[in-house]
This record gives sequence, C-alpha cells and structure tokens, in this order.
Amino acid sequence: MLVNLTIVAENEAPSTRPPLLPVPAQVEYSDGQFRLNAEFTLAVEGKPHERMFRGATRFLRRLSGRTGLFFLQHYITETGKSRFANLVINCRRPGVVKLGTDESYRLTVTPEKIELQADNDIGALRGLETLLQLLQADEKGYFLPAVKIVDAPRFPWRGLLIDVSRHFMPMEVLKRNLDGMAAVKLNVLHWHLVDDQGFRVESKTFPKLHEMGSDGFYFTQEQIREIIAYANDRGIRVMPEFDVPAHATSWLVGYPELGSAPGPYTVERNWGIMDPVLDPTRDAIYDFLDQFFAEMAGLFPDEYLHIGGDENNGKHWNANQDIQAFMKKNNIPDNHALQSYFNQRILKIVTKHGKKMIGWDEIFHPDLPKTAVIHSWRGKEAMVKAAQQGYMSILSNGYYIDLMQPAYFHYLNDPIPEDTPLSEKEQRAILGGEATSWGELVSPETIDSRIWPRTAAIAERLWSPQRVKDVEDMYRRLEVISFQLEEHGLTHRKNFEMMLRRLTGDRDITPLRTFIELVEPVKIYTRHHQGVKYTSSSPLTRVVDAARPESMAARDFARRVDSLLANPSENNQAAVADLLKIWKRNHAALQAIINTSPVLREIESLSQDLTTISEIGMAAGNYYSSRVKPSEAWHERSLELLEAARKPRGQVMLMVVDPIEKLVKAVKTE
Amino acid sequence: MLVNLTIVAENEAPSTRPPLLPVPAQVEYSDGQFRLNAEFTLAVEGKPHERMFRGATRFLRRLSGRTGLFFLQHYITETGKSRFANLVINCRRPGVVKLGTDESYRLTVTPEKIELQADNDIGALRGLETLLQLLQADEKGYFLPAVKIVDAPRFPWRGLLIDVSRHFMPMEVLKRNLDGMAAVKLNVLHWHLVDDQGFRVESKTFPKLHEMGSDGFYFTQEQIREIIAYANDRGIRVMPEFDVPAHATSWLVGYPELGSAPGPYTVERNWGIMDPVLDPTRDAIYDFLDQFFAEMAGLFPDEYLHIGGDENNGKHWNANQDIQAFMKKNNIPDNHALQSYFNQRILKIVTKHGKKMIGWDEIFHPDLPKTAVIHSWRGKEAMVKAAQQGYMSILSNGYYIDLMQPAYFHYLNDPIPEDTPLSEKEQRAILGGEATSWGELVSPETIDSRIWPRTAAIAERLWSPQRVKDVEDMYRRLEVISFQLEEHGLTHRKNFEMMLRRLTGDRDITPLRTFIELVEPVKIYTRHHQGVKYTSSSPLTRVVDAARPESMAARDFARRVDSLLANPSENNQAAVADLLKIWKRNHAALQAIINTSPVLREIESLSQDLTTISEIGMAAGNYYSSRVKPSEAWHERSLELLEAARKPRGQVMLMVVDPIEKLVKAVKTE
Repeated sequence: MLVNLTIVAENEAPSTRPPLLPVPAQVEYSDGQFRLNAEFTLAVEGKPHERMFRGATRFLRRLSGRTGLFFLQHYITETGKSRFANLVINCRRPGVVKLGTDESYRLTVTPEKIELQADNDIGALRGLETLLQLLQADEKGYFLPAVKIVDAPRFPWRGLLIDVSRHFMPMEVLKRNLDGMAAVKLNVLHWHLVDDQGFRVESKTFPKLHEMGSDGFYFTQEQIREIIAYANDRGIRVMPEFDVPAHATSWLVGYPELGSAPGPYTVERNWGIMDPVLDPTRDAIYDFLDQFFAEMAGLFPDEYLHIGGDENNGKHWNANQDIQAFMKKNNIPDNHALQSYFNQRILKIVTKHGKKMIGWDEIFHPDLPKTAVIHSWRGKEAMVKAAQQGYMSILSNGYYIDLMQPAYFHYLNDPIPEDTPLSEKEQRAILGGEATSWGELVSPETIDSRIWPRTAAIAERLWSPQRVKDVEDMYRRLEVISFQLEEHGLTHRKNFEMMLRRLTGDRDITPLRTFIELVEPVKIYTRHHQGVKYTSSSPLTRVVDAARPESMAARDFARRVDSLLANPSENNQAAVADLLKIWKRNHAALQAIINTSPVLREIESLSQDLTTISEIGMAAGNYYSSRVKPSEAWHERSLELLEAARKPRGQVMLMVVDPIEKLVKAVKTE
Repeated sequence: MLVNLTIVAENEAPSTRPPLLPVPAQVEYSDGQFRLNAEFTLAVEGKPHERMFRGATRFLRRLSGRTGLFFLQHYITETGKSRFANLVINCRRPGVVKLGTDESYRLTVTPEKIELQADNDIGALRGLETLLQLLQADEKGYFLPAVKIVDAPRFPWRGLLIDVSRHFMPMEVLKRNLDGMAAVKLNVLHWHLVDDQGFRVESKTFPKLHEMGSDGFYFTQEQIREIIAYANDRGIRVMPEFDVPAHATSWLVGYPELGSAPGPYTVERNWGIMDPVLDPTRDAIYDFLDQFFAEMAGLFPDEYLHIGGDENNGKHWNANQDIQAFMKKNNIPDNHALQSYFNQRILKIVTKHGKKMIGWDEIFHPDLPKTAVIHSWRGKEAMVKAAQQGYMSILSNGYYIDLMQPAYFHYLNDPIPEDTPLSEKEQRAILGGEATSWGELVSPETIDSRIWPRTAAIAERLWSPQRVKDVEDMYRRLEVISFQLEEHGLTHRKNFEMMLRRLTGDRDITPLRTFIELVEPVKIYTRHHQGVKYTSSSPLTRVVDAARPESMAARDFARRVDSLLANPSENNQAAVADLLKIWKRNHAALQAIINTSPVLREIESLSQDLTTISEIGMAAGNYYSSRVKPSEAWHERSLELLEAARKPRGQVMLMVVDPIEKLVKAVKTE
C-alpha cells in the first residue's frame, strides 16, 4: 500500500482550485505549474498489465482533444525508461480487476515533471483521471498546478447497476457509461441482464431463453466478452445479475416447464411486480439452473454472481397444489422459507461453479452462509443487522437514481454514517454501494441524463473520505464534471436540446427550454400513478423525459431569493427580478409553440402557472423591498395560486414554487 | 413494376407542403387529412420478408416518439388482414437486398385510411420513410395530408462510402449512419475497410492482417455480420472494399513478404499517397489473395466486391529489380500495364469466388471485361467514355463530401445531366453514385456533421427525377431533414454545441457560436497545406472541426444583402443591420473567452476581422440606404480590409466577406 489514509487538511481554496471529483484522500498544492505544450511525452515504467498502455494512450488523446495540442506520441505500447518524458507512470505490478484490488496512487506535479506511482495499473488509471481533472488554462496556455496527491478509495465496491431488460440498451450505451464510470472512479458494472421484460443474454445451452424471451434484443456472448474487456481495460468489474426465482417471465416464454403456473408465457410489456416465478420444488429446475449457471460462470470472469431474489409475490406458489404439497411434506412453513430453500440450492450451484453469491435483501435468512453478500435495497437497517451478524453487504437504498431525487440526497447517504452503531470490525463488512439505473422509464436516448451527473455524487460518497460532505462544494464540482463527461460521448447534456427540438418541431426552443429548466419529473414511483399507463413500448420523448431529474435553475433561483431575503440590496433585487421578468413573459412565447405542437399540450396550464407565479413573485419582491404592505387578501390569494401551481402536469413539477412562496410569506401584510 | 415514371406536374406549394426529401417521382395532394391518435394501428399483408415486421415496428416507435402518442401495438411479428387497421402495408413478395431490386412503392393517404403498396418489403420501407416525412400538426393534433404518391428511384445504386481505416469508426457510427441512409433512401454502404492506416476486418485465414495492421481497432467477423444484418433490415447493401495493390501498408505490417519492397512495414500514421504496394509478379501473392478473397466472399453476401486499384505511385515497383525483370520478360511496358495485369488476375480470383468486381477509375483498361464496374472518382469524362465502351459505372466525382463543398454543388452534379452525350442505352450503364466520406480528418465525434445533411442532397440527386433541381427548395427541405435525422442518434447537430463547450471550457458559448456559424473549414485539400502536419493521432476538436462544412448563417446573410440591394426598404435594412450589429460586438465577448482558452487563440485575429468587416458593412449599408457618397479612399480601404479578412486563420474562412463586399461595391462614391 502506497497510501496512508491519515486525514490531512487540504489547502484547497474551493472556488479557484481544480474541481477534483471524487475528492482525493490527500491533496497538497504548492506554488508553480507544469506548463503543457505539444512536445509533451509520457513514459510507462515498471510491470503493468497491458491495459496501462491503452489507458495511457486514451489519456494522451483526451488531453490532446481538450487542448488542441498535436502531441508526437501515437500509441503507447511498451514500457521504457525515459529521462525526457514529462509524465512518468510507474506501476509495480500488473493489476487484477477484482474486489479489493489496490486502487491507490500517488501523483506529484512539479513545474518540471509529473510522476504517477501506483502499486498497479488500476491505481494508475485512477490517477490519470485525477490528472485530467487538474488541467487548467490561462493566457499563456495550458498547465497543471503543482500538487501532491495521495489517494485511495474508502470502499472497495463502487458500482452502477444498468438495467438492460426493461429497455434494451445497445452496446454504445454501456461503453460510454463505462467511460463515465472510470472518469469518477467507479469500479463495478452491475449488469441487470434478465427480468420479466427481456432475457438479454445469449445462452448457447438454452437458446430459447434469448430467442423467445428478448424480442430479438439481446447481447451475444461475443458482445458480452467485448463489454467485459472494455470494462477490464478501465479497471471495472462486470457482475451479471440473473434474478431468480421471481422476475422470471422472460425465462418462461421459451421454457414454460420451469414455471410454477402452467403457462404459456409471453414477454411482459407492463411494469410492476409480476406473478411468474420458477418452481422451486422440482429437481429439473436445479438441473436447468446448474447448466445455465455453468455456462454463465464461464462467460463472466468476475468472482461474484448476483442471483437477485427480490420481489416474489408468491401468488403462483400459493396457487400450485404440488408446491403446497411439497411445502407441507418438507415442513416449509411459508413462501419466505420456500425461497430460502431455493436459495440454499442455488448457492450450492453457484459455489460449485466457482462463484460467490450476492443477492438482494430478501436472500437474508438465518441459514445463509457467511460467504454470501447482501445487496441492501430496502433500507440501511437490514444492512446494519447483516453486518452485526457477520455478513458482508453493499448499499443501494438511497442510491436509486431512477427515483429522480436530487444529487445531495444521494450524496449525504453514507453507507457508514458517523453515528453508525457498527464496530470497526463490523464496518469492514460494508463493502460499498451501487447506484441503480432501473430501466422502466429510460431509453437509450435518455438514460445518460438519468445517470449523470448525479451518479458522480454517489461515486464521491463511495471513494472520498467520510469527512468530505460539503453539499455546495459538491454541486460546484459536479457541474464541471458533468461537462467533462461529455468527452466520452455521453448524451446527458446534448440530448436535452435535441429532445426540445423534436418537441417543438425544430422551432425556436428558447421558451420551452426556459420552462423545462424549471421543472423536474415527479418523484419516486409517482409517474406510474397519474393516469398514464406505461408499457415497454411507450414513448419516452415527452417533456417529463427531457426534464432533468434536478433543476439547477430552480436551485440557483432559491439561493437568489435567500440572498434577497437576507439583504434586499439593489443587486439582490435585480438577481431575482431579472429571472421573474423572463418567466413572466415566457408563457406567451411558449403558447405559440404549443398551439402546433400537440405533444406539449399537457404542460400548457403549468406554463401558464409559471407566468402567474412569476407575477406574484414580482409583486412580492416589490412589497418586500419597498416595505409596502399589501392586503391580507393579496397574501391569501397568492398562496392559493402558488398551491395550485404545485400540481404536477404532464408529470412534471414546477420547482420555483417554494422560493416564490418563501418570498410571499416574507412580505408583511397590513 | 407498380410505378409509371411519367413526369406529372406536382401540385406542391413549396413552402407549406411537407418537405419530402428525396422528392418522389409523383405526388398528388388532395383535400382532407388523416388524423392521428393513440388508437392508430397498422397491419402488414402479403408475403414480405421478415425485415418488414421490424421495419414496421421501428416506424411505429418513431411515430410514437415524435407525437408522444401511446400506441397500443408493441412488436409487429406477422401478417394479418385487419379491417380496422389505419395503415395497411401490402407487399407482394419478400424483397432481396441486391443491385436492381424493385424499390418502388405507392402510398395513398385518405382521411379514412393509409395504404402502402409495394412489390416487396424494401419498397415498403422506402414508403414508410416518405410517410414519416408527411407528418404534420395543427392545434387539433397530428395528421397526414391526403395524398397519392407513386415513387421509384431514378438510379439503382445510391451509396455512401465510409472510410473506417484512416480513423476507426465504432459500430454505432455505422449503425446510426445506416439509419440516416435509410431515411433518405440510400441503398449501398460502401465500407472502405482497409488502407495504409489500418486493416479493419478480422481475417481468420491471415490473422496477422488485423492483429498487426490495426492497432487493435478492427471489426470482428461477428460485428461485420451484425452490420450487414442491420443494413439488410433497412434494405441497404454492404459492399466491402479491399484496396489493392496500393494503399496496402496495413497488409504488409503482418505479411511483409507480399510487398514490393523488403520492409519491415509499420502502420502508417501520415496522410497522402504512400509507396507500399503489393508485388504483382509473384504467384504467392495471388495464392494469398485467393484465400483472403475466398474468406471475405463468404463473409460479405453482396454480389459486388470493390478492389480499389487507385493511386499507385509505382515507386516500389520501379525500385524492385525482380519486378523490372518480370516486366521486361513479359513485355509489360509500364506500371499501368503491370497494374492491369494484376487486375486481370484479381478479376479471375474475385469471379471464382462468385463476386463481380468493381474498382476505381484506374482499373479501366482495354482488356477489362464488361462485367466489371468502374467507380469514377477523377471525373465524369472517364465515366462517359466507359459507358460508351459498354462498361457500367457509378459516380463519386463531385460527391466527395470530405472536401467541404456546399450542398448545392453536390446536388447539381448529375450523373446523367441533360446535355449528356450518351444514348439512352448507354445511359443505362450509369448505375448511380456514391457520396464518399474519406476519413483523414474525421473522428467518431465529427463524422456525422461531415456526412449530414449534405449527403441527403446527393441522395435526392440519385433518387428523384432529373427535373428536380430547385436549389432553394432543396435547402428548405434539407433543413427539415437535418432535424429529423437526429432521431437516429446522429450527432451532426448536437455535437456542435458540445464541441463549443469543450473549446470554451464550458463558459457561455454564445459569442463563439456566433463566430463559428459564420465560418467554414478551408476547402478541398487545403487543410493539409497550411503548415499544420496532420497524422492519425492529431486532435480533431478545434474550431475547424466544429465548424460546419457549409455556413447556413452566411447563406442567409447573403440573401438579406441581395434583398437590401434590390430594395433598401426599412425592413430589408433592419434584416442586414441587426446581424451586423451583433457581429460588430461579438469580438469583445469572444476575446474574453479566448484569453483563457488557448485552443481558440488561432482564430483570434479572424474574430477581430469579423468585427472590422461588420463595421464596414454597417457603414456601407448606411451609405447605400441614405445615398450619401463616401470618399474613394473609404472604398479602397474597405476593400483592402475585406480582402485581408479573406485569409483563413485556424484553417477556417469567414463566409460573410463576399456579401459585405457586395454591399461596399454597390455604394456609389464621390
């Protein structure tokens, strides 16, 4: 281990220093700069895995792309001592992509030279990402500030779940997101390959799985290997999930004999917890799974295999007389116990094929062996309990990025908070966490904007020391990282205006942009409960899909209102009034577009409300600043109108109601 | 054949009718509309190939995506008569993706129903693209105008060449461009897989070809099959090119014994015509190529195989004594004859493996058999000559989209112009043409913006009747198609601002956008001759790469100036002055950004020139409108400054110099 995790005070002036994200364990800036020019070269020393060469080459091309500098090196293909290289990367040994691998690095930038040292190439790759985040520019050109960074992750398991079953995601979606993950030092792709709505992996042993269960949208085994290699090149593990015994419709389309009900089954088009479930009482099921997991164990090199195990509603078990008879005969009291029986047998199969088992909360049971890992989605309590009983676990509760919650919510969700009841030893059983991009309401066009940039905040939570939790500073850095992530082809920013062009029929998007920047999609699972029935074929091109999970414009406005309330200076007044004036006028312009863009009709009255509440805000601002006291009636009427504006329309919510209401409430009435 | 190509006058009012592109052979609008709602369903009748079902499903999803309507159908998987379906697609037989297949269709929209009839599913797919272009909206919702369209292509070969050797292009670049091709009814992907800079196809027979010749960036055979299947689903042929005997460096890295010089060879990093060339005098070469083409003939189902044959500088042949001796012995007078000898032998090999040969101009030779197709890149004269001698040919001269020429230039380049010297019979030997996206200066990030939308103009040239050549109307429709093409994930529009964000370090991009919208990259091959030495590793992220090949803003401004000169009304004055005022102020804002974005330094003085010439334009507009006569000295000085502003900087040219100069020249002096 190169790194000493002792906490040192960072001499970082938040607003001027390069926006490192995740914040490294130790950062010490000093005077001076390393100036970058076209003669820049790098050399790799030591004994790295060959992924180091490809990683160093990508680093060079990205640095060249950002600066426009024509570097002289093409592909880095071998180690070699160079007394002249400007950047020397030194790795002691080849890295192995697996849980617990050493990802530490030590980065030193001086005016003369850059040195990056790591135990292995995976740590060096993490360091190269930090190095790219250090790039700055001034009138004289590009440079890196002199700095010494000593860094290592807090948690060894830092993942992103991508659900390719609910909506199929093509190869490039996975690849560009793997690049994004590498940029923020995430190290596990949890590949949710199979669910009721699609069996997305080719099985040569049981070809009817993908042939009949995927509508033709699945990954061939060569493609699976391609993704694994791509991830491995970036120091990222790929852990597949095959959810059993529930979430199983797509298995049963081709093999109905595995089910607990007679079938036939068709690929599920709807969302929710479905009835189809494997029959845990017949040996033939385990023979099938034995062969299937044998094949998948060979395909996926990671030591962990996720068997899901969640959300079994038990209906088909209850309705099946043979299953009921089996339970009676074997003294299995209830469905939870039956599932536990199933898990025990699955565990044997998984273990037999050289894998460690991981599953969702529901797999937790007194008989579960200590080698299994619990994936906590229902709450941190279960995780604490598991750790106290000696089980390893990872956290996803609080990291459900499909629920449209703000970045700070996820950011402050610490797997081991300061007030943890766990002992130091028990804490070591908390391996980390995973952001989960569930796929019901995302398409290849929108998925990036649901994952990024919020997942970067989770990445920091899992990498950086516990003490790093300044929300304002996180948002400042998140904005820069969001911009940098675009260089990987991620579409979280560029698809926004593209979707607006489609919504407006390519007319002036300005008023629609102004509106959508102030709304957010409805939260948690509300979107399914507003009279809109979603299926896997529903369009994901509406306002709610273009809207970002978190409105930075509304966040900014709320701060302006706070400043005004703290000090109604002319500047602070203008900061609020300038925006309100634009919003007040916005609906008239947007109405003209809505008139011949029927797809926008659903937000027409909400757009009208933006104008209404902006007028209220203007009046309130005026009263507040001038200390003129309006009537109580004005106050009541304003609060009523604000309340009315809270009602979601088109499944989006206006996010500036709160700050305007705050302003209204601050106005003293007669 | 369903279609009668008799020319009928279209009753199309250019500015209000749906912007169909390519313009169909016959279009007849009538009163009424088919109104679209969520209950819309389609049915497929007849005996189509199964690609029809996937194509119909994609059509449904695109229609749903544009309108936000929740259609009830999921995947279309079979034919079936439906008395209730709103759209009935009827295909007589399964289509076969090959040269000359029947692509005609007949589309009838009435207020009650839509009928699409075609000989086969490929024609029906073409018709579905037209149908999507017909979509309109008004206050009441979405609709299609009542219309009867009878359509078929003018030329059977309508291609796009994508060069993946100079810069490797990942799978998704090919896929999204295949979708774009299908949208404008192109039907051949000419896949330029091999060149000096990279051997991009896996060879199981000679693995050192891709292993040593590609830097690790090649298509596996499974990926090749995936692209072919993807193209086939869209009625597009995939024709591979294996350029021999020159452009051969990447072959020789792994197999130097095939070369005319002893080697060793390394993958080429530079651009230009290179010396490495296969040795045509040794039988071992032909054995090698026999085995190689046998493998590739099995991989690529298209009946045509492109053998390149261009740009052999002959240097290595001249320098090789054995080759010289062989020529002497066999009475081969010169290198052209030697290459012809080579071609004859290659032709035998290609023919033996069941393929027809196509090659660039240079393969033309009196001994060439009439089954070969000439691909004309050097000029139309050679094409005419070939046709007169009974050879089939396709045209790419005039369709080199990498040369940054405007859309109208390509659009007016007719393979068979009105004044053709060819007889009707000879004309039938002109099969069509191909746009060529050569890869020296494109990256996966920029390639779409170099291909689209200009290639749509070429697509219309090759599909629509000869009489369709109204440039203004083409530009009007091109803008709409450019917007619609985004739905396939094409990045030609959305990567523009993304690149500007990178250039500015994510600051306000407005002044840079204003500037870049008025410039174009230098034309033809100038970019290689301005003191910048490009290699395959050079950054393609500068202003010149973000700039579009054709400035629509400059085009618009030129028209405004023409209107002003025709009639200096107040409106026409304002139309010019409003822009000039913005441009005049632009440099000050851009300068502030340039100061800390060193990559922009190269356009600093050009940005200053924009301000300078805008001031001149303001003065000239004032003199012109007011009829005040400035001094001759003002005139001279203005023209000097305008001339100075023509000088490219950062390899881009300011495209508003001409119209401002026109304005200055129109001003009468004392």
